[in-house]
Amino acid sequence: MSMHLNAFLLGVGHHEAAWRHPLTDSARVTDVRHYEELARIAERGRLDSLFLADGLALSGDVRYNALGGLEPLTLLSALAAVTEHIGLIATVSTTYNEPFHVARKFASLDHISGGRAGWNIVTSAGEAEARNFGLERPAHSLRYHRAEEFVEVALALWDSWKADAVRNDRAGGRYADPAAPIDHTGQHFRVKGPLNIQRSPQSRPLLVQAGSSEDGKEFAARFADAVFTAQQTLGDAQEFYADLKRRLPAYGRRPDELKVLPGISPIIGVTERDARRLERELDGLTIPAYGLRQLSTILGLDLTGHPLDGPLPEVPLDTDGQQSRVRLIRDLSVREGLTIREIINRLAGGRGHRVVAGTPGQIADQMQEWYENGAADGFNIMPPYLPGGLADFVDLVVPELRERGLFRSEYDGRTLRERYGLSLVEAHS
Amino acid sequence: MSMHLNAFLLGVGHHEAAWRHPLTDSARVTDVRHYEELARIAERGRLDSLFLADGLALSGDVRYNALGGLEPLTLLSALAAVTEHIGLIATVSTTYNEPFHVARKFASLDHISGGRAGWNIVTSAGEAEARNFGLERPAHSLRYHRAEEFVEVALALWDSWKADAVRNDRAGGRYADPAAPIDHTGQHFRVKGPLNIQRSPQSRPLLVQAGSSEDGKEFAARFADAVFTAQQTLGDAQEFYADLKRRLPAYGRRPDELKVLPGISPIIGVTERDARRLERELDGLTIPAYGLRQLSTILGLDLTGHPLDGPLPEVPLDTDGQQSRVRLIRDLSVREGLTIREIINRLAGGRGHRVVAGTPGQIADQMQEWYENGAADGFNIMPPYLPGGLADFVDLVVPELRERGLFRSEYDGRTLRERYGLSLVEAHS
Repeated sequence: MSMHLNAFLLGVGHHEAAWRHPLTDSARVTDVRHYEELARIAERGRLDSLFLADGLALSGDVRYNALGGLEPLTLLSALAAVTEHIGLIATVSTTYNEPFHVARKFASLDHISGGRAGWNIVTSAGEAEARNFGLERPAHSLRYHRAEEFVEVALALWDSWKADAVRNDRAGGRYADPAAPIDHTGQHFRVKGPLNIQRSPQSRPLLVQAGSSEDGKEFAARFADAVFTAQQTLGDAQEFYADLKRRLPAYGRRPDELKVLPGISPIIGVTERDARRLERELDGLTIPAYGLRQLSTILGLDLTGHPLDGPLPEVPLDTDGQQSRVRLIRDLSVREGLTIREIINRLAGGRGHRVVAGTPGQIADQMQEWYENGAADGFNIMPPYLPGGLADFVDLVVPELRERGLFRSEYDGRTLRERYGLSLVEAHS
Repeated sequence: MSMHLNAFLLGVGHHEAAWRHPLTDSARVTDVRHYEELARIAERGRLDSLFLADGLALSGDVRYNALGGLEPLTLLSALAAVTEHIGLIATVSTTYNEPFHVARKFASLDHISGGRAGWNIVTSAGEAEARNFGLERPAHSLRYHRAEEFVEVALALWDSWKADAVRNDRAGGRYADPAAPIDHTGQHFRVKGPLNIQRSPQSRPLLVQAGSSEDGKEFAARFADAVFTAQQTLGDAQEFYADLKRRLPAYGRRPDELKVLPGISPIIGVTERDARRLERELDGLTIPAYGLRQLSTILGLDLTGHPLDGPLPEVPLDTDGQQSRVRLIRDLSVREGLTIREIINRLAGGRGHRVVAGTPGQIADQMQEWYENGAADGFNIMPPYLPGGLADFVDLVVPELRERGLFRSEYDGRTLRERYGLSLVEAHS
């Protein structure tokens, strides 16, 4: 058994000041060769997969961060062509898309990659995203209802071609048995089907989800093969892990059919002092006005005018926003008594995900502790700067994990689903 | 001046019986390596671009044809990663999509390919397509109204980042000047903008269009950089060419700012007899039931029961269907007095596009005649079988064209727009 490691790629790094650091080249955020290099590094480390987050509007102020990079499905299709083994997980929203398009594009990516496609299903919490589609942002629960029906339709479309449909009988003049219409009629969608692309190697992509709200957890328990989550402490992570796994039997699923991957942003140094220095350098490059604006957006609360070195004011839980992220920030503020500036610095490293600065051994220790104590089936690796931060993880931390018998040395399994220890979907026939 | 040559890729060939012929391997229609091979052949021939047609439903009966291949944008992104020069033109519908998604994906493909993206704009005439999106097929004129507004929005989004917006001032902490909202409010769309991806090398993709109806021609005259068209005779092609070019000044455009590329399906033999034999082999493998069904679909008229060796009945011009294709078939039937079976065979080769069987020299003669007599600025090459038919065109016909000074020997120009002799779009600043 190997833990699962996913490389979460984001421009020139997860630290919001990465673009200003001499270890990065921020002209590369729209350069496909940058991402090809990252994919090759991740594959060299035998990581399970790489992952691209996404939003349908700019996610921050371009004055202060290197935003405006490539679209996930097009980028991952390009990376599929230059890699062999690594899984390719794209974020696509169910709120501003049509299931026919999305099911088809993932089937296409799955064919192109030889069975390495994954879909991180999001419901798009942002106001700015709605306005790019002429809509008001739907309420949280409505977004999840739509997401459920969306995935049901996609699953039906992926099953519309039987596994043995293609006969390819050239002499007899019979190419395939007809795919079946799905004739879906629901609250949000009417879709006739069948899909106009043949069944792909995995039948369906790996399904990933990252919401931690009550709706999000139920959705994950029903549909997800893997969950990305932001957890700051071992206790919180254990609670989240157990909570999710407990929900699976109600959907006829075994606990090991869903893998939980907390995020971790490893700041790696040969010595602990090196790691701390790098962390200080990065934090020193953050732009407070930017951090304050990002924090205000996440909380749905304008913090302009609040003293940076004072405490965070009382924050209401906006049920239409990023509930789980708001709760996490409130907990940080209360548990550790942080000032607004300290919270901004903490978020700058990993936007609420855990930042761990230390030697490769210390980072491996932390990962081992969570992995062996019911807090994680693996990790979502969020290098603070790229590509160097990923290269250091692969070249320094991964060998530590291997020595401890925690991580694979070679790829096994043909598809991404197999790599995550999931059975291939049985084709109806 | 070089004529423009576009390789129109379609599964294992444009002849509808190609999949049954020993020169093809119909297991490859979902294999990205097949398309990589085709792209490399086209690039070896220094062709301008390659192109993928598309529909949002199966375009025929999978019992009788090798359908259900890859989705264009994902496939072209993969091909971008393994080619250097060739243009990459994807078909995307304006009827069942949102301009924000489409503008963004093409900008992404343009970044990934280093300025080689093209968009073939279609309005989706099929009934089956509408039913995959819970809609009734909109009327022809409504589809074009939507298409116009769709492209206006896309153009505004592509211009939302100024050309010099990205400063990348790491020391000063200024990444970019903010992109401007577009605040579009129209009959079909409300889109706030800006685009969440930086301005791409071409600013906008090459815009291609293929409708030949009155609406289609006006749309092309206003927006298109290139037009694909099906023309059977020199006279018809000249008339279409002159008609289109005449419409440009009304939109403030010069006639050479739009390139007209009629389709041609070259059946190539070392001798004319070889070519004719290959043509007979392919035609002999067609399945009459399939042809009859395809013809019925195009005409919007059920021909079941009509004798194959009798004449085509009177066909009404359905204003909501593929008007130009219906007219072309009616003309074929009247001009040449063809039976239904003969029409089916004629369509089998190129679905209404011109099929020319002959030696490389004879095919080059035909192309030269059209090119030098005001019927074409280049051609949309539709090999009857793939990859061999494209390899023969590149290795046998292209050298003939070069010897006559009609086609380039080396690539020039950095972007696809430059290759088509179009200026780069001036960025507003």
